[in-house]
Amino acid sequence: MAFVRWRLGLLVCTTILVHLVESESTTPASQTNVQYNATWESLDSRPLPQWYDEAKIGIFLHWGVFSVPSFGSEWFWINWKENMSKYVEFMDNNYPPGYTYQDFARDFTAEFYNPDDWAELFQSSGAKYVVLTSKHHEGYTLWPSAVSFSWNSVDVGPHRDLLGELANSIRSKTDLKFGVYHSLMDWFHPLYLRDKFTLFTEQMFVKQKSIPELHELVNAYNPEVIWSDGDWEAPDSYWTAKEFLAWLYNDSPVKDTVVVNDRWGSGIPCKHGGYYTCTDRYNPGVLIEHKWENCMTLDKASWGYRRNAKLSDYLTTAELVQEVVETVSCGGNILINVGPTKDGIIAPIFEERLRDLGSWLKVNGEAIYSSKPWTFQNDTITSGVW
Amino acid sequence: MAFVRWRLGLLVCTTILVHLVESESTTPASQTNVQYNATWESLDSRPLPQWYDEAKIGIFLHWGVFSVPSFGSEWFWINWKENMSKYVEFMDNNYPPGYTYQDFARDFTAEFYNPDDWAELFQSSGAKYVVLTSKHHEGYTLWPSAVSFSWNSVDVGPHRDLLGELANSIRSKTDLKFGVYHSLMDWFHPLYLRDKFTLFTEQMFVKQKSIPELHELVNAYNPEVIWSDGDWEAPDSYWTAKEFLAWLYNDSPVKDTVVVNDRWGSGIPCKHGGYYTCTDRYNPGVLIEHKWENCMTLDKASWGYRRNAKLSDYLTTAELVQEVVETVSCGGNILINVGPTKDGIIAPIFEERLRDLGSWLKVNGEAIYSSKPWTFQNDTITSGVW
Amino acid sequence: MAFVRWRLGLLVCTTILVHLVESESTTPASQTNVQYNATWESLDSRPLPQWYDEAKIGIFLHWGVFSVPSFGSEWFWINWKENMSKYVEFMDNNYPPGYTYQDFARDFTAEFYNPDDWAELFQSSGAKYVVLTSKHHEGYTLWPSAVSFSWNSVDVGPHRDLLGELANSIRSKTDLKFGVYHSLMDWFHPLYLRDKFTLFTEQMFVKQKSIPELHELVNAYNPEVIWSDGDWEAPDSYWTAKEFLAWLYNDSPVKDTVVVNDRWGSGIPCKHGGYYTCTDRYNPGVLIEHKWENCMTLDKASWGYRRNAKLSDYLTTAELVQEVVETVSCGGNILINVGPTKDGIIAPIFEERLRDLGSWLKVNGEAIYSSKPWTFQNDTITSGVW
Amino acid sequence: MAFVRWRLGLLVCTTILVHLVESESTTPASQTNVQYNATWESLDSRPLPQWYDEAKIGIFLHWGVFSVPSFGSEWFWINWKENMSKYVEFMDNNYPPGYTYQDFARDFTAEFYNPDDWAELFQSSGAKYVVLTSKHHEGYTLWPSAVSFSWNSVDVGPHRDLLGELANSIRSKTDLKFGVYHSLMDWFHPLYLRDKFTLFTEQMFVKQKSIPELHELVNAYNPEVIWSDGDWEAPDSYWTAKEFLAWLYNDSPVKDTVVVNDRWGSGIPCKHGGYYTCTDRYNPGVLIEHKWENCMTLDKASWGYRRNAKLSDYLTTAELVQEVVETVSCGGNILINVGPTKDGIIAPIFEERLRDLGSWLKVNGEAIYSSKPWTFQNDTITSGVW
Repeated sequence: MAFVRWRLGLLVCTTILVHLVESESTTPASQTNVQYNATWESLDSRPLPQWYDEAKIGIFLHWGVFSVPSFGSEWFWINWKENMSKYVEFMDNNYPPGYTYQDFARDFTAEFYNPDDWAELFQSSGAKYVVLTSKHHEGYTLWPSAVSFSWNSVDVGPHRDLLGELANSIRSKTDLKFGVYHSLMDWFHPLYLRDKFTLFTEQMFVKQKSIPELHELVNAYNPEVIWSDGDWEAPDSYWTAKEFLAWLYNDSPVKDTVVVNDRWGSGIPCKHGGYYTCTDRYNPGVLIEHKWENCMTLDKASWGYRRNAKLSDYLTTAELVQEVVETVSCGGNILINVGPTKDGIIAPIFEERLRDLGSWLKVNGEAIYSSKPWTFQNDTITSGVW
Repeated sequence: MAFVRWRLGLLVCTTILVHLVESESTTPASQTNVQYNATWESLDSRPLPQWYDEAKIGIFLHWGVFSVPSFGSEWFWINWKENMSKYVEFMDNNYPPGYTYQDFARDFTAEFYNPDDWAELFQSSGAKYVVLTSKHHEGYTLWPSAVSFSWNSVDVGPHRDLLGELANSIRSKTDLKFGVYHSLMDWFHPLYLRDKFTLFTEQMFVKQKSIPELHELVNAYNPEVIWSDGDWEAPDSYWTAKEFLAWLYNDSPVKDTVVVNDRWGSGIPCKHGGYYTCTDRYNPGVLIEHKWENCMTLDKASWGYRRNAKLSDYLTTAELVQEVVETVSCGGNILINVGPTKDGIIAPIFEERLRDLGSWLKVNGEAIYSSKPWTFQNDTITSGVW
Repeated sequence: MAFVRWRLGLLVCTTILVHLVESESTTPASQTNVQYNATWESLDSRPLPQWYDEAKIGIFLHWGVFSVPSFGSEWFWINWKENMSKYVEFMDNNYPPGYTYQDFARDFTAEFYNPDDWAELFQSSGAKYVVLTSKHHEGYTLWPSAVSFSWNSVDVGPHRDLLGELANSIRSKTDLKFGVYHSLMDWFHPLYLRDKFTLFTEQMFVKQKSIPELHELVNAYNPEVIWSDGDWEAPDSYWTAKEFLAWLYNDSPVKDTVVVNDRWGSGIPCKHGGYYTCTDRYNPGVLIEHKWENCMTLDKASWGYRRNAKLSDYLTTAELVQEVVETVSCGGNILINVGPTKDGIIAPIFEERLRDLGSWLKVNGEAIYSSKPWTFQNDTITSGVW
Repeated sequence: MAFVRWRLGLLVCTTILVHLVESESTTPASQTNVQYNATWESLDSRPLPQWYDEAKIGIFLHWGVFSVPSFGSEWFWINWKENMSKYVEFMDNNYPPGYTYQDFARDFTAEFYNPDDWAELFQSSGAKYVVLTSKHHEGYTLWPSAVSFSWNSVDVGPHRDLLGELANSIRSKTDLKFGVYHSLMDWFHPLYLRDKFTLFTEQMFVKQKSIPELHELVNAYNPEVIWSDGDWEAPDSYWTAKEFLAWLYNDSPVKDTVVVNDRWGSGIPCKHGGYYTCTDRYNPGVLIEHKWENCMTLDKASWGYRRNAKLSDYLTTAELVQEVVETVSCGGNILINVGPTKDGIIAPIFEERLRDLGSWLKVNGEAIYSSKPWTFQNDTITSGVW
């Protein structure tokens, strides 16, 4: 057990943390003889694999074709198509008429992508897991998916299995866990739009794309986190989410270790699934019963890389550490996002934040990893103390 | 009835032709109360819609992403991947390492594509129908297919529905029939390769891509020719060809007028289906019972445009006319291929051949259109006379 | 001596031609002891080297950065900058705002450029000399000029000495003469504009660019034709034309064989210099005392290649032959222009015209080469007969 | 007068500084009646305009076509051409064979270049002057030079007068001085190579390019610093440096305020000219009689931007401040280099260093600006104290 009090610049935080020394002996999340049904009651009864709560800190990576325009945010495509003026002007000023989002893909070069370097950096940051956007709402897969022919990172652009290479580096060079973000929907996929038009009474898209993608990901790359997203327009029944999770927990190669979040259909987040993410940058500020995660991003305005982000758009190291402390003291994990560039670089400003965090964790990590939140999160006397 | 004898340069051809004046009164190909079963016996019993035999001359268009490298032939992709040295050298000399075929798509600009001009040209050539590659073996669709997201002419490259625009122009500016070439297979589609790996016991590809494509084509564009291809690796049962044709003949919007060829599975060409094409450039030289078509190409070495084709690679007008005469005199239709450029041009050398043919047909067309072959095709006395 | 009468289709031409059998013994154009002064009187007294009049037919090649947009004409740049709407629209529709003409240069790829093939074609056409645009008004040099750093074909675009390679092929593979077109001015060169602003009282441009270019061309490539152009805005004194010609005739490596035209300053064409070209497509229709040349182009609307030229834009073979006959019968040479593509191809439609001409000349060349015009060019009785 | 002692982290520096309160009344550097001769004795006698010594801190900007590959360093071109393997491999891996340096220029897009933002940043950094590479050894000018047609930032790439826009912003938005770096030589300019081949007995290049460029710069942009470079291969007589400086000091529009450095020919640096720079990163560590400048760079390995630079390649803020203190305490100015990106961004890591320096200077600037070095620079007792 350790009681720790941090002092960081003007920020003074107190967190009472309990090391789970006894936790080593707890039973594994998925016992061999437990079988889950495709009901939320059954699925929700699965204990969260222990590694996740102990990890506390993860790295989130938003990388995709949006990294090519690298402007506005990773929602570039839809913002542009919905005529947000800054996107329309950006296109008008810099591209020929008629240029499409898909035309960007060829410039996703990734020529400097060295996943071993990334792995070393993430290790140095003190993070314990990494979550990469395997596919964002654009539909482009960072692995050679059989259901995304000519719209994946091997067929056009980098000509590499970006995801597979990172999984390998993370596992061979570090002790971090490797996870994947996955968008259930593709904004502009015609089959998705067709299903939506039927009010999701048809399921061509989910059967031909989303679920096959998830199976490919799990079977080929054994991710230990599945960070689902893009679920909000349709119910979990459309997504066949419960059936997928039952398979994942019962029969998949990662059934004993995999952790999932809660974005599995409209109305599901913060209610069902694995840990809760609720909304982006969820940070309740109070202790939450259910394990939760604060996914947040160092560029305050975007998850994807923005070429024209200014220094003031980035969290400072002090702000990052405060966010870490607040999150962990309230029982959350924190998933810290950085957006790599289209050439495969994690920009030095991100690297600095991550290494600074790593330095801070070298000193203070004892009070973070495997800690348990104390009954009280706030120091009632001193404001800003957690 | 008309007996005609042509003299063209040194070439002397004789064809005995019969005008089908009476044919106007024949019953339509598909009577309202005829229903076809998904058996070849039933399907083969459908009379060929009369317009087709009368048409005699069609224009074939090979256009696609292969029009970007525009080198070697429209089989560029597979020849390159199978390490044919001239393709490998072309890529090595002109592109960065790792460049993929899909990377070419963005340069498929079609900025000069004016389908009204094309329509006028085809009309002037004397042709009576046009067949465009809706999708070649590369899998890229020239219309915005719902099952080819980001690998079609609206999403990447031209940003236009190339096929739809041509259909409109042909129909609004000419009296030609509009048809589509369609490759059942995609050489490199992962689902196709997976099905192939199962010896075609699985049908993911055909169910998720080929057949949906065909339905889209028929329902959206009402083609009057479906020129099937890419069938040879799998049996007709894999392709669900008979079921598709039964639907096409019984229930589709073009059931009364559509004509199909014979490439519907291994072992099928020259045996079943609509008219026979048998092999490329099929020209039997003798009278064939079953209606057949000689598809041939003005660039003797390629169906797709080749930037570096020489004059000697093209048929002369005299050679083209000879081919027309030979074909028609033996009961065939001729489908004359030209390959548009990536910028949407039908090169002047092609235009010249087609307009020359049109001039010839203005004089001699009476002996071509709606003609019927005579019992004898060859003048036994004078060699080279048909 | 030979009297010849041609019949070609509907065109009937008569030309009375005299073979210069005796001409072999005439003295060379430039005797060793003749020195020319930098006056027109002296320069004009130089006999035209005999090869030129005997040659009759040359090939003109317009190739440059304008071959990249390949739209409108080789005057693309200035027409666009002077806001001709079709050029402005072309740029607006196909390029990002701000795109410059110089940005085109990188796409001048010339990957299929095989000067041996060109040489063979020109030989086959029956032409006896070739004139390549060494530099058009755009200022871009097709050889690595020391005074056009980063704006030449070795530095940007083809990465080859296009001119040098053609000179070598012409000389090693054929008996044709090799010549160069050269624009004295560069439309947009700041030094030229500055000189122009001073009403050509300053000569920075001509001293630093035009004249050094001409010396480079003559010394490095020994051209036997210098086809000067771009002279019209300034007097011959600005261009130091007389001084250059005196050097060319007295001291240059091609002093005995070189032929020049008459475009050496405002007021000079059709008055001074070597043979007369007067205006583009000069074809007086009557016998001219002074040796002249009809430069004309197979694409009636452009000298540079146009991707979207239609068949009707090209002269037919019959029209070309008529032009040849008319020109030669009136004492002119004809310089037949074709525009290669940016990838280094002479399009098949051009190839066809040239080879057709070659075929015609194989039969009728005796009446063309080394012929001398008869006193009368027109058959007074039959109109259209020369 | 002020005696100041800094404490910064573990670094403890002492500098004795003297405010030049009295200096306000000194005479201007260039009195109206002083005329300088083109001799070093005369030129060296010119007093350094006072603003420069008071300024202490400048920002150096290396921006050019090298910012496109953005790899290795701003010496990319010559390192590649001299076959340094890392450059050769970079080109082999990422570009087609034959790609040239000039081909990069089109991708110098500068679409995010906002010189007002840059001006604000430099002001915030506490710097008092800015020096931009008007032209590096590559020869590409960041302004529309009349002697660099088609190889400047208006003709190809950004399509903007990058230099002029920055000059305007600096002057309208800040009180900083604006200066230019200028390379006398162009590595690969044929005229330069020719002059070099003559052992610099000919001066075509210097007369047609270097000196005209300098006159353009001075007359059009009135820079207050001319930071000459690229001088080392030829003597000052080749460069006509003394003549240029005599004009600059006597007759130019900036004669009263301009400051130059010492790189005006082989053997000249550290001996003649304005302030001394001697070698890159010159930092003598002892008090120097003659005014000097330490030009250094935040990316320790490059002056131009490198896309793949790691955090460890950058100086920390602490290291930067130490360098500032050391330099100023020994009488030097410091010129802090950052390399903008090809899209016109000063990367956040640079921004952070510069703003951190600005924060430090807000507190400690009194002891920097207009300070005079004390007799002793080192605290003899405590090492590392200045």
